Amino acid sequence: MATMQEIFKGFEERQAKLVEDGLKNPLAHGAALIDGQITPLLDAKIPILDQGFLHSDLTYDVPAVWDGKLFRFNDHLDRLEKSCAKLRLKPPMSRNEIEQATINLISKSGIRDAYVQIIVTRGFRFIREPLPTNDTPENHPIYILVMPYIWVMPYQMQPAGGEAVVTRTVRRIPPGAIDPTVKNLQWGDLIRGLLEAQDRGSQYPFLTDGDGNITEGAGYNIVFVKDGALYTAKKGVLEGITRKSVFDIAKKAKIEVYLDDVSASLAYVCDEIFMCTTAGGIMPITKLDGESKGEVGPITKLIWDGYWAMHYDSKYTTKISYE
Amino acid sequence: MATMQEIFKGFEERQAKLVEDGLKNPLAHGAALIDGQITPLLDAKIPILDQGFLHSDLTYDVPAVWDGKLFRFNDHLDRLEKSCAKLRLKPPMSRNEIEQATINLISKSGIRDAYVQIIVTRGFRFIREPLPTNDTPENHPIYILVMPYIWVMPYQMQPAGGEAVVTRTVRRIPPGAIDPTVKNLQWGDLIRGLLEAQDRGSQYPFLTDGDGNITEGAGYNIVFVKDGALYTAKKGVLEGITRKSVFDIAKKAKIEVYLDDVSASLAYVCDEIFMCTTAGGIMPITKLDGESKGEVGPITKLIWDGYWAMHYDSKYTTKISYE
Repeated sequence: MATMQEIFKGFEERQAKLVEDGLKNPLAHGAALIDGQITPLLDAKIPILDQGFLHSDLTYDVPAVWDGKLFRFNDHLDRLEKSCAKLRLKPPMSRNEIEQATINLISKSGIRDAYVQIIVTRGFRFIREPLPTNDTPENHPIYILVMPYIWVMPYQMQPAGGEAVVTRTVRRIPPGAIDPTVKNLQWGDLIRGLLEAQDRGSQYPFLTDGDGNITEGAGYNIVFVKDGALYTAKKGVLEGITRKSVFDIAKKAKIEVYLDDVSASLAYVCDEIFMCTTAGGIMPITKLDGESKGEVGPITKLIWDGYWAMHYDSKYTTKISYE
Repeated sequence: MATMQEIFKGFEERQAKLVEDGLKNPLAHGAALIDGQITPLLDAKIPILDQGFLHSDLTYDVPAVWDGKLFRFNDHLDRLEKSCAKLRLKPPMSRNEIEQATINLISKSGIRDAYVQIIVTRGFRFIREPLPTNDTPENHPIYILVMPYIWVMPYQMQPAGGEAVVTRTVRRIPPGAIDPTVKNLQWGDLIRGLLEAQDRGSQYPFLTDGDGNITEGAGYNIVFVKDGALYTAKKGVLEGITRKSVFDIAKKAKIEVYLDDVSASLAYVCDEIFMCTTAGGIMPITKLDGESKGEVGPITKLIWDGYWAMHYDSKYTTKISYE
């Protein structure tokens, strides 16, 4: 993890600049695009009658901006499109318009390391109600939010790694109930997991599928390393784009990846554990259920380095022109 | 169902009056209390950063007003209190204040048959973030909405009954993932059920638990009648207050109630089926998976009559003084 300190140092310098900018630009603390209007994020409001609130009837995606460049933006837009199709939602803008509106919002905010949410909701019509009789195609609301980069695991914690538990009091929602490949905000099980982790003096819950297999956690995929190979759940989880980067790095490094059912018992006998998400990258776990798993291991380090290196590879990035 | 036409006629007369009132009182179309401010419902907004939206981290309850009187209001407040406790949410008002604020809002709206939502959300702090260091107790936002009475099954359809399907493409979220006794708005599975019902030319989905047992539908409990007894799911469902009224009526009428696992196969061999919810009462199902179940049966009629009679029993009602 030779590059770790360098990556974090660059981030800290840009953060200091962002705090300065915030004195001049109210959007530097976060910005929202709602109904064509750009506002500071803290002032942004939605109608309480939106079905995105009233029945969590929505999907969303989370691209991130790192050092002034969107990372794998096309992959996020692809997934958003698929999610919308599965839920029969139709955003009011074309893919190109969403792309441009997002880039414009990031640019106006001046935020060079950003967490971006693009949310499409059902809008005012509850799914039980019949379609309007005039048969005009429905357009569903879109909300775009840009805020300073979020770390699911604080970067200061990453060199030593964080603490996880395999939850005992809650299981993951099965895909037969809610399809986890459609990115959603129905976090009831994940919130119970977070509370259990906190109650047990830990931080990161790993939820099982109720049949002894590991699924995912509160906003992150989970990867085990055993005898030099990676193991991660195929079913019952979000098809993470950060995880996709992990697969790309593994392929290049000739590391075997098993995308399959992953027994929870592997957590206790594997050599390394890391979590991955757009909001934080590759996040090493070095303590499980209160027991040490040793220091951050060599494969995790290799993946970590590879992941952040990709952020400086123009193949994966879209440069923002700031105003 | 001798009383049915009478009940509906009274409702229609009050509806006509409500439409007239709407010309004078903008709250007659619906009213919201948010942050101490009363607004017309259509204008009511919440911060997009509310965790009730961003992670559906909330609970709620739905009392109804019928003919100027709240029905079983205490039961709804009891359940709301329990739900908040389970989610570790603390409303910013006492129970008595919530009661008074709700009654005041209904009174100001002038709506004599109302659907009421009392929603408590996590507010701005995501559950992963540590509590503020000043250690002051957190108060979570409360939103109270009043709108004209909602019929999950239109009253015009109730004499003939509606059409249901046992869903094939989706199962109910198991209680080990999200606790259904905590009333929630994470409707991903129920929305899939509604879409499947519509795709199959039907209306009301019945979801199983994935192990061959019937659970509940999109906002209603399900009751089967077989050989003069009632069968309804004990686990994996909301503990409905309308269903509680069904139990009360059954007890008085010496009808046996089996609160237990209920096999989905019973749906096909039972004598009568009805659904129950605060938003529509007792809702007969007379067609299942495209096959007729015959006319609305005698037990359903008895329960239907008993349910609406309770709305005129002062033991269960709280009279509103309209302004």
